[in-house]
Amino acid sequence: MKRQPIAIFDSGVGGLTVAKEVFQRFPNEEIIYLGDTARVPYGTKSPRTVIRFASECVEFLLHFRPKIIIIACNTVSSLRAVSLREQLDVPIIGVVEPGARAALAATVSKRIGVVGTKATIRSGTYKAILESIEPGVKVYSNPAPLFVPLVEEGRISGPVVEQVASGYLEPILDAKVDTLILGCTHYPVLKPVLADIVGAGVTLIDSAEAVTARAEQVLSEEGLLSDGGGAPPRFFVTDVVDDFEEVGDVIWDPLPGTVERVELGSVSLAE
Amino acid sequence: MKRQPIAIFDSGVGGLTVAKEVFQRFPNEEIIYLGDTARVPYGTKSPRTVIRFASECVEFLLHFRPKIIIIACNTVSSLRAVSLREQLDVPIIGVVEPGARAALAATVSKRIGVVGTKATIRSGTYKAILESIEPGVKVYSNPAPLFVPLVEEGRISGPVVEQVASGYLEPILDAKVDTLILGCTHYPVLKPVLADIVGAGVTLIDSAEAVTARAEQVLSEEGLLSDGGGAPPRFFVTDVVDDFEEVGDVIWDPLPGTVERVELGSVSLAE
Repeated sequence: MKRQPIAIFDSGVGGLTVAKEVFQRFPNEEIIYLGDTARVPYGTKSPRTVIRFASECVEFLLHFRPKIIIIACNTVSSLRAVSLREQLDVPIIGVVEPGARAALAATVSKRIGVVGTKATIRSGTYKAILESIEPGVKVYSNPAPLFVPLVEEGRISGPVVEQVASGYLEPILDAKVDTLILGCTHYPVLKPVLADIVGAGVTLIDSAEAVTARAEQVLSEEGLLSDGGGAPPRFFVTDVVDDFEEVGDVIWDPLPGTVERVELGSVSLAE
Repeated sequence: MKRQPIAIFDSGVGGLTVAKEVFQRFPNEEIIYLGDTARVPYGTKSPRTVIRFASECVEFLLHFRPKIIIIACNTVSSLRAVSLREQLDVPIIGVVEPGARAALAATVSKRIGVVGTKATIRSGTYKAILESIEPGVKVYSNPAPLFVPLVEEGRISGPVVEQVASGYLEPILDAKVDTLILGCTHYPVLKPVLADIVGAGVTLIDSAEAVTARAEQVLSEEGLLSDGGGAPPRFFVTDVVDDFEEVGDVIWDPLPGTVERVELGSVSLAE
């Protein structure tokens, strides 16, 4: 069990920020990553459609008999993590709750901002989780729909990104938050720009770090941390490999391991 | 036959620029529009995936027994139009060839620019068609991947759009083109900004206008133009209706007719 891989999935490349963090934190582990690039993005689709897609991703990852599954996608995480957890023997963790808990640990003023995709903000999941853990907290959310395409195009600095980001953050900063949740796994790539805009008084909460810390806790508690070995990560995508590698190099320069194309739903798989 | 509808489809909302043009040009016709919003975008997916999606769109539209099918999507148009045309009794036209012919009619210098999605530019279809019709023509292409998300977010003017557009157009303008093909059905929404950047010496070719003119020619030649009647357009989408209406209002203010959600692949359909 200790030598089984850590499985991570996302709608596309965004979850690579999580995979990179996991890879750096656990050099002895093997990582299997799935990006559903044929159907990306999930963040603009309906819950029913996203749940179907996510279930197929989990089915695929189960072929590798992972020791844990990390949902590196905020949209899936908010919609599906709980019900998936009830069906599986494998521990499965999402990005939303670890991010929310990290924000609550960081805030002093109890005023927290959240940026995310339209679907994530519309779901109200961050707000609901934050308020359920800490009833007095004030939550200020704003969707930031252009951040994903900006990152996917490799535009992670410069005047365009700065102007777009300032516009999204303005109403949140006006509300005097002291903590900002980056509620999408693409966003940590923009951290230098975002940190400049929010200033030193606001703590940025990175889903990648929060979920990795949570994974460490679960693996440690269950005695599942690998005691040696490690292997280059294996990346799987459901559509074109080239684009994934290109954006992967922006997020994780250079992308290690191998990238293979798979069809979801197919069960014959070389493990 | 004359009273049968004109069917139009696209991966999402972009084709509304075509539907709007058709609606204005043919007030006596009924329009059926399908946007495959559950699987949008097509422009970043592989040819095999796009062809499968497009075939399902056509299957759906055939239930309405249309007099013509307009492929209001450059990606599908470049990959699929010819092979679909061989299988069907209904005339089917795409946006690429009419746009290319309009550009060749407009250019004096025989230097033509093309902007489009990554997939459209990567396919090389505009260049191939332009050169096959007019062998001496020089074609300068550049992908403009942020234009679609900008339009989908309703950002159709202002400094961000201007900077992004200037960056994409700079290498094309440096090549001294006198004609620029807007090779994606989202782009005509940005025409005011683009016209400012390229200046009066460059003619913008709008796919929507070009394909509508081609549709008029086909319908007229085959005696299929309606002799009266007309009806409000019917829009079908494969995922959330609200988002479609929201962006629809940006493109076609306000969006007329009705918007209904459908599942592709289902055959029971109230016509």
